[in-house]
Amino acid sequence: MSSPLLEQLIESFRVLPGVGRKTAQRMAYHVLERGRDGGRRLAQVLAEAVERIGHCSQCRDFSETDVCTVCASGGRDRQQLCVVESPADRLAIETATGYRGLYYVLQGRLSPLDGIGPRELGLALAARLAGGEVTELIVATSSTVEGEATAHYLAQLARQHGARPSRLAQGLPLGGELEYVDRGTLSHAFGTRGEMRD
Amino acid sequence: MSSPLLEQLIESFRVLPGVGRKTAQRMAYHVLERGRDGGRRLAQVLAEAVERIGHCSQCRDFSETDVCTVCASGGRDRQQLCVVESPADRLAIETATGYRGLYYVLQGRLSPLDGIGPRELGLALAARLAGGEVTELIVATSSTVEGEATAHYLAQLARQHGARPSRLAQGLPLGGELEYVDRGTLSHAFGTRGEMRD
Repeated sequence: MSSPLLEQLIESFRVLPGVGRKTAQRMAYHVLERGRDGGRRLAQVLAEAVERIGHCSQCRDFSETDVCTVCASGGRDRQQLCVVESPADRLAIETATGYRGLYYVLQGRLSPLDGIGPRELGLALAARLAGGEVTELIVATSSTVEGEATAHYLAQLARQHGARPSRLAQGLPLGGELEYVDRGTLSHAFGTRGEMRD
Repeated sequence: MSSPLLEQLIESFRVLPGVGRKTAQRMAYHVLERGRDGGRRLAQVLAEAVERIGHCSQCRDFSETDVCTVCASGGRDRQQLCVVESPADRLAIETATGYRGLYYVLQGRLSPLDGIGPRELGLALAARLAGGEVTELIVATSSTVEGEATAHYLAQLARQHGARPSRLAQGLPLGGELEYVDRGTLSHAFGTRGEMRD
């Protein structure tokens, strides 16, 4: 390598997900050849983000302030609370749906083998539900074994505090061809088929 | 978005090649969730690289010093000079081959329509060849129309200065199936077939 600093830059890019040696090289060359301004800005924002972004004290999503902009907003319905596993899930729901309630980010799901039990997940949420403001707890955990176990636990927790638990609908994805849907999903969708109305 | 700073971080990642909104999100979340140390280091190295990496005064490759480590090295054969189009090409040759000579990075190729003529490409190289140290000019430009035109021009330049021009072999890629090789390459490889020896 003609430049030790360039070598360091290439290695540093590999911290990003899905970036191997070859892609890291391409990124480094691209920034140096055509994107120095963008690179400068990325360096600056990244340094600031890594230092300043923590977690919202209410929803546990990423935030550089104690309470994030969504939780602090006066325009959200505080009776609905949607529980997701990760910040990325929260963003997906916020982008795709018209949901105007609040969120709670678990930052994980029940996984006894990894030492994540109900205690680790639920204490802050239980306190939140005990406040009595929440009437519907929308459980948006993954459709995996751990996600389902977490959903089951959250539903119990909600009922204990007088909130109504709900779960995202499961079935065939929109626009998917029946032939290519996995067996589990197809079997579930068939078993929970609903009546057609005009 | 719950955090304006996170939004900025996602936008900033999009300066990288091949990174769209979705990948940028994944990168931002990944760094915040699992790679803060790596992110801090990337920010620091990137800021430094963007400011400090310029071009080697001899080979024009990226370097943070006036003369890059390869050009400054005492262990390279100064009679061989390999001309490439870009720093990435130079790195590919350095990694794949056992070449121990020096390099010259054109940072482009002849492209009259874009205002890159022989003058823009060749002045520094001509001065280098006039030095008389180089005996072989290895032309490693791309097999494109512009690359070929550039190669032709460089060969003339080399001969004018008493250096022997050479060109990378063209033909079938190793391990490729004949059936899938493009027509131009196949026709060329067929036409320039060599005698087999024991």
